[in-house]
Amino acid sequence: MAKESTTIDVGEPSTVTKSSSHVVGDAKKKGFVAAAAGGGAKRGLAIFDFLLRLAAIAVTIGAASVMYTAEETLPFFTQFLQFQAGYDDLPAFQYFVVAVAIVASYLVLSLPFSIVAIVRPLAVAPRLILLICDTLVLTLNTSAAGAAASIDYLAHNGNQSTNWLPICQQFGDFCQNVSTAIVAGSIAIVFFIVLIIISAVALKRH
Amino acid sequence: MAKESTTIDVGEPSTVTKSSSHVVGDAKKKGFVAAAAGGGAKRGLAIFDFLLRLAAIAVTIGAASVMYTAEETLPFFTQFLQFQAGYDDLPAFQYFVVAVAIVASYLVLSLPFSIVAIVRPLAVAPRLILLICDTLVLTLNTSAAGAAASIDYLAHNGNQSTNWLPICQQFGDFCQNVSTAIVAGSIAIVFFIVLIIISAVALKRH
Repeated sequence: MAKESTTIDVGEPSTVTKSSSHVVGDAKKKGFVAAAAGGGAKRGLAIFDFLLRLAAIAVTIGAASVMYTAEETLPFFTQFLQFQAGYDDLPAFQYFVVAVAIVASYLVLSLPFSIVAIVRPLAVAPRLILLICDTLVLTLNTSAAGAAASIDYLAHNGNQSTNWLPICQQFGDFCQNVSTAIVAGSIAIVFFIVLIIISAVALKRH
Repeated sequence: MAKESTTIDVGEPSTVTKSSSHVVGDAKKKGFVAAAAGGGAKRGLAIFDFLLRLAAIAVTIGAASVMYTAEETLPFFTQFLQFQAGYDDLPAFQYFVVAVAIVASYLVLSLPFSIVAIVRPLAVAPRLILLICDTLVLTLNTSAAGAAASIDYLAHNGNQSTNWLPICQQFGDFCQNVSTAIVAGSIAIVFFIVLIIISAVALKRH
């Protein structure tokens, strides 16, 4: 009887541990499966991030170069003066060209980090770096677009209170090019917002 | 001999399972400790986030009201005309007042989410909502500050190419108030960048 009871005593823990080790194994397996699924979803996000960066590079280079080349010379001139408008006549447009060029350069430099995020979708560091830098560059891009847009608005409509006359009646093509560049710069802002949201979703615990 | 061997056989697994269950218990305990420490750090971040939002509310309300009340009437006038400058003479300044007022209202509405993040520092949803909304509002704030700053620059320096004359020589006090409002709006931008970084750090897996 005593021996039987000991065997039962020993037997019970062994079955309990067996089942518990089974549970642990299941949990581990489920964990791996969840991590793999999360990694897959995050890899998809990272690839979307990469493609979005390529599109943003195209848009920002387009915006900077359209603004840079926006120039118009009127077909009439006086003896001493030729009427000409270029992006460098207005500081806000100069700022736009410089800022958007910086944004485009940053985007090119950020591609390796985006690739690291594709290769190692669960790595936190590249995501965090991208999110912080994207936020800073979004601010630069937005301020440039805002500054250029307000001067463009003034060039189109003028301002009676301050006696600033519209110049777009004379320099229609110039104003059109500038507006195109500003619209492209604003599209880049939308891209950056999406990029930041992607990084935030990829950062959160799955 | 056969019996002895069986007792040894049964004995071995029992010690193994004992030690393994010990390990599992330790790991669990360590996990809880780590989660508690992470929760503490995140609670600290959440409190900092809340204080930063309060400061940003003060700054944005200040910026909007300084711009709204910026007005100057010159001490001389003709029979038909009185020289007066107000924020509503320039669309960029009107946009600044409206946008920064929206930003301030958003900040007030975001306080409950920030409080939820303090009470439940490991919750993901309020953090993600705050990060996305902060990013959108940062864009609004930055575009307003950029637009107002470029018009303010023009009011100070004028532009020879387009024959827009500076008005700040006449309306010095008005320009000073406008500049103050723009600086306050720019400080709010810095606050938003810090808020976004806080949310990103709080979101990442600990």
